[in-house]
Amino acid sequence: MITRAFEQNFLGFAASKKLLAKGDKILVGCSGGPDSVCLLFLLEKLRKILEMEVFCCHVNHNIRPTSKRDEDYVTSLCERLGTPLLCKEICLPKELKGNLEEEARILRHRALDEAAEHFGCNKIALAHNATDRAETLLHNIARGAGLFGAGTMHPKTGKIVRPLLFASKRNILSYLLLLGESYCTDETNEDIRYSRNRIRKNVIPELEKIFVQAGANISRFADIAQEESDYLDLLARNAIKQCVFEKEGCTFLDCNKLFEQDFVIQRRVIRILANSSPSFSAVDLTLIFFGKGENGKSKIVGRAKFVKVGKNIVKVLPL
Amino acid sequence: MITRAFEQNFLGFAASKKLLAKGDKILVGCSGGPDSVCLLFLLEKLRKILEMEVFCCHVNHNIRPTSKRDEDYVTSLCERLGTPLLCKEICLPKELKGNLEEEARILRHRALDEAAEHFGCNKIALAHNATDRAETLLHNIARGAGLFGAGTMHPKTGKIVRPLLFASKRNILSYLLLLGESYCTDETNEDIRYSRNRIRKNVIPELEKIFVQAGANISRFADIAQEESDYLDLLARNAIKQCVFEKEGCTFLDCNKLFEQDFVIQRRVIRILANSSPSFSAVDLTLIFFGKGENGKSKIVGRAKFVKVGKNIVKVLPL
Repeated sequence: MITRAFEQNFLGFAASKKLLAKGDKILVGCSGGPDSVCLLFLLEKLRKILEMEVFCCHVNHNIRPTSKRDEDYVTSLCERLGTPLLCKEICLPKELKGNLEEEARILRHRALDEAAEHFGCNKIALAHNATDRAETLLHNIARGAGLFGAGTMHPKTGKIVRPLLFASKRNILSYLLLLGESYCTDETNEDIRYSRNRIRKNVIPELEKIFVQAGANISRFADIAQEESDYLDLLARNAIKQCVFEKEGCTFLDCNKLFEQDFVIQRRVIRILANSSPSFSAVDLTLIFFGKGENGKSKIVGRAKFVKVGKNIVKVLPL
Repeated sequence: MITRAFEQNFLGFAASKKLLAKGDKILVGCSGGPDSVCLLFLLEKLRKILEMEVFCCHVNHNIRPTSKRDEDYVTSLCERLGTPLLCKEICLPKELKGNLEEEARILRHRALDEAAEHFGCNKIALAHNATDRAETLLHNIARGAGLFGAGTMHPKTGKIVRPLLFASKRNILSYLLLLGESYCTDETNEDIRYSRNRIRKNVIPELEKIFVQAGANISRFADIAQEESDYLDLLARNAIKQCVFEKEGCTFLDCNKLFEQDFVIQRRVIRILANSSPSFSAVDLTLIFFGKGENGKSKIVGRAKFVKVGKNIVKVLPL
């Protein structure tokens, strides 16, 4: 049976990424949309096998006329499933526009943290899926996010786990259809004025016309890119131990030692020292500055200022 | 002046990737289309500064009614520029269909090799650009090309150099417009039945509506991914030296030593030993087989057969 296969895939993914453990108390963030409804069903269905407890939090943004409908839907769903639920309201300042989505995300995460504390949960499960991840990857690399746009949406970040990352939107909708369950539709997701929505509505479906698995394939690519990127960062951090030294409370970089590293590692060292993701060309110009920049000159990259204080020595000042 | 800026970018890219050197004799493959016409103009315009000689080869595929028109166009262009030209005809077998594009590519490369030999050229310059590269990246990752789909189109492979990889299609067309030069249009490129053409016609333009630089950004991402991928392969080859040994003419792998490596490197070791790009899941299953497979059992991955011949020893047989 297909729902069984989907549940097996869920368990397999959670096991391979070590997302769920015996005795976990998990809070599901549930908007009422298909992804988080699917996640709530899966966790409720499998919690006995997994020996976990499941809790739910619905965050009401109060920004859409349908916000109340979504809250009512999640409330009745949790009553039916017997899941303890906490509904939280957040208020977004009206004047914010460009950053509304980012601001909402921050407030939502804060509300979820509070709800997790309320229930004594050690994990928060979010319903990001493979299609979301493919969208984010395409969005980041098309935007020119620099060297590090490929790795997006870790299966696990601190308390947060994303056990649906294995599944495409298509898989999720099929699973709910087979269960005969309904869900709410966020009509603002249909709005293609936002760049991410345009990628969701126009780009991914076009790629899926060419390769039916395109979304899932791109997500898998993001997964591997993430792991490889993390490994290269680990090597870069080891390199930093060899070429960075502290003196009288200040941080210095020995450029000669940096230049002994492979070019790929040199770039990542700069990104780590700059504590941001500067553009490809900014990183390359910084390397040229390290090699040829005059004594006393400085360069600001990301959140760091690099000052040449000797032929091969750069002082690193965090900004 | 904008043509000047474009030429400076060309020189900068060629220098940073070490594509062109004093004394080079360069053969340009010119179809008559905008990309290769642009490349021929750039090389002819800059050959004195670069102290190079430029030659041209046009390969006539004879598969389109407009093939003769394109050949005539390149002939008159080379006469005007004073570029020595060799036109070569290739015949594609009629029955080939699915692989027609790949077959044409192989025959075209062979013809270019012969032309380079005819003129005594040490390099062949092809006109792949940033937009082509972005297309290839999207195509590969959407198709699920496994771990290594990101790095595509090296600026330099053996004799072949691709000095236009810095430029988007848009840049190239603007440059030709500013020069007041014309070019031929390959009407089969308009055919969206082919998956790559669909990406070119439908996906990249949609992304460029969202981020105007999307094509160039994705190409730059491919460039970095290529370099990072090459570096990881280098590390994997070093790991192979430590965990692979020869005995009585056979190759063996010490799994314990392999498992001491990071997971990212283990995967790439398998890909190198398999001499192909197996899928993500095939690679992961092979690692499980190395760890838990029974003595005497075997597994075929890509172009290799792995046979368990001891608790931690695998015999590697190329296929």
